[in-house]
Amino acid sequence: MDFDAFFEQELERLRNDGNYRIFADLERHAGAFPRATRYDGENTQHVTVWCSNDYLGMGQNETVRAAMHEAIEKCGTGAGGTRNISGTNHYHILLERELADLHNKEAALIFTSGYVSNWATLGTLGARLPNCVILSDSLNHASMIEGIRHSRADKVIWNHNDVQDLDRKLSLIDPSRPKLIAFESVYSMDGDIAPIKEICDVADKHGAMTYLDEVHAVGLYGPRGGGVAEREGLMDRLTIIEGTLGKAFGVMGGYIAASAALCDYVRSFSSGFIFTTALPPAIAAGATASIRHLKDSNEERMAQRDRVATVRARFDALGIPHMPNPSHIIPVMVGDPTKCRWISDVLLDTYGIYIQPINYPTVPKGTERLRITPSPLHSDDDVDHLVRAINDLWSQCALARQVA
Amino acid sequence: MDFDAFFEQELERLRNDGNYRIFADLERHAGAFPRATRYDGENTQHVTVWCSNDYLGMGQNETVRAAMHEAIEKCGTGAGGTRNISGTNHYHILLERELADLHNKEAALIFTSGYVSNWATLGTLGARLPNCVILSDSLNHASMIEGIRHSRADKVIWNHNDVQDLDRKLSLIDPSRPKLIAFESVYSMDGDIAPIKEICDVADKHGAMTYLDEVHAVGLYGPRGGGVAEREGLMDRLTIIEGTLGKAFGVMGGYIAASAALCDYVRSFSSGFIFTTALPPAIAAGATASIRHLKDSNEERMAQRDRVATVRARFDALGIPHMPNPSHIIPVMVGDPTKCRWISDVLLDTYGIYIQPINYPTVPKGTERLRITPSPLHSDDDVDHLVRAINDLWSQCALARQVA
Ligand SMILES: Cc1ncc(COP(=O)(O)O)c(C=O)c1O
Ligand SMILES: Cc1ncc(COP(=O)(O)O)c(C=O)c1O
Repeated sequence: MDFDAFFEQELERLRNDGNYRIFADLERHAGAFPRATRYDGENTQHVTVWCSNDYLGMGQNETVRAAMHEAIEKCGTGAGGTRNISGTNHYHILLERELADLHNKEAALIFTSGYVSNWATLGTLGARLPNCVILSDSLNHASMIEGIRHSRADKVIWNHNDVQDLDRKLSLIDPSRPKLIAFESVYSMDGDIAPIKEICDVADKHGAMTYLDEVHAVGLYGPRGGGVAEREGLMDRLTIIEGTLGKAFGVMGGYIAASAALCDYVRSFSSGFIFTTALPPAIAAGATASIRHLKDSNEERMAQRDRVATVRARFDALGIPHMPNPSHIIPVMVGDPTKCRWISDVLLDTYGIYIQPINYPTVPKGTERLRITPSPLHSDDDVDHLVRAINDLWSQCALARQVA
Repeated sequence: MDFDAFFEQELERLRNDGNYRIFADLERHAGAFPRATRYDGENTQHVTVWCSNDYLGMGQNETVRAAMHEAIEKCGTGAGGTRNISGTNHYHILLERELADLHNKEAALIFTSGYVSNWATLGTLGARLPNCVILSDSLNHASMIEGIRHSRADKVIWNHNDVQDLDRKLSLIDPSRPKLIAFESVYSMDGDIAPIKEICDVADKHGAMTYLDEVHAVGLYGPRGGGVAEREGLMDRLTIIEGTLGKAFGVMGGYIAASAALCDYVRSFSSGFIFTTALPPAIAAGATASIRHLKDSNEERMAQRDRVATVRARFDALGIPHMPNPSHIIPVMVGDPTKCRWISDVLLDTYGIYIQPINYPTVPKGTERLRITPSPLHSDDDVDHLVRAINDLWSQCALARQVA
């Protein structure tokens, strides 16, 4: 078999379907977010980023940067081993304590990413809880899907955010079997939010564990940035809260917060936790500083909310259709993959605005969109420029407008 | 079901079997490796680390630290997105070029860890190459095993480093099926090295792809630190070389180096690559600096080899049994889990020497060991102190000695 020919041919298929991804090569400017330099072959260009998941700009926060610098000077650049073999650094311990406190749980356990935390935790629990069934929301993130698949536990998919469907499906399962309900608070592409309380009620009724991915919510919701469950006073009703250190907290890594026994169990049995080099001390130090900052400061969250509301209102005034949702994510609906990519390209090349187009398979065909994430750092001028540019292109593409 | 009771009971079983892991809580001292502070409840203790996988001490290298500091000041603390959605930073591109050059391949692709690079690459190729069979060395690392398992491709395990067995097993497979041979160069626990040339010969004979994990070799072997395959002039014969940025390179992350088509294919189809926040720019910058340094400098490699030879000779003179192997890893064989843990505890508490005990299931029962990794930074006094301490404890435990 000619392997490279096979790869080329599959890539060609992606290209023909318009699904081949080209990464924007950026250099963000600390101290000047959301500004970045974009590299394009020999050329560079000054751009404004409107699709970052560093939602609050914590990646340029001085305290977070200082914490990283300090840890590098104190402990060096890497952990030097797996958690068990010389790789546990005191900064990891401090971060785990900080996370347990953030979610008001007995313990927390950090992983190299949010992806690995979902994959490893669901993979381990699903495989090891005898005869376990995992009930997975139909729009769950790839990392949860892969973890469940890896566990080889029985899986039941329930309709997205549909508590009745979940209840009905739980009723069909032998009450003696261990059950785990896996879902997210803020869904990344539509920005909608799960009915957490109602899901917990149904879970209690059937004696199921609950696993909540708050990746797009930690740092952003709740008086201390504990997520949607904190805002709604529900943290104690969730068996496991999972989050990332790479989005609103502005660094990298993932975690679960849960009972001491559960965290110790995953720590002891999960291949994806055990057999990998630990996070660099500086990453743990930066994340700890960021969490602490957002526990005390509401300023970034308030400013972000203001920017989100402003952009939405401006779009509404012009009839630019965006999916209504109660979160900080603004999906501007284009509904056509070619136009979506074209608008994104022109925004970048002509207007210096970078918004990655979101096409199939990330979202269903016909719902292609620009996913816009306003941050506290976008100025009024930035908003003006964005709204005018999209308005121009909307007309050029003869896309439908929505009357408010 | 009382979930916490189940977790507690399983943890109790680990404790009874002597397999419950307690992590040493360390703070390494940049500028003074291999020294570290160990935290133990309220107390702290000064220790010397003898089991780090930061094999050359690059984690305290000034150039690497400076590169990280600079990238933090320039681009901030995190990438702010997945590679496709605003997370690609120019430092990632430079790192991928550096890695392609290191292994003399067309391209390279970075992942959040070596674990993820193995899991994601083998998982993607095994699942997507139609009717693929993966031939896996019996001692392959957990991350490869999990990737192969995840792919659901047919898997054939061949006896460790046994080329005849591999050849025989390949002969039994339908010649028209795509085949992939997965193995390591330096095996982490025994320190033995695969017969790479012979394996490539057999692969060519059967038209199989080769996948070589050089995690414990990159930075350490070859004139530019390209690994054992570089040293033996074999890099061009391997389809895929996989490595880590978290061991000899002293930072964090993983990668593959291969043809442009293969890297682009994994980039385009692998869930574990696509759906996760990219490495922080500072991590990429630090890794690039480290690779560049070790491409030009043999000093660290030479000094490490000298330390390894010295420790081995001193053990030989005293009859302390260690597994003979051609690498930098010295497995001192205890052969009893309780004594192995006891020696490790006394080394730490009484002598200030930290060597994590390696027990089942990481190694087979009866082969419990102290895995020692001398670095260029261990002084003659450090070696004296280590050898005397082990000699004392060997006598106290009445362990057998080996006559040279
Ligand atoms: C819902 C959800 N969970 C988990 C992850 C993975 O987190 P991380 O980026 O830290 O790997 C993501 C996105 O990256 C996500 O959108
Ligand atoms: C052979 C081998 N491959 C891969 C890995 C994973 O690499 P990383 O630590 O970068 O996740 C390890 C150990 O951690 C290993 O020993």
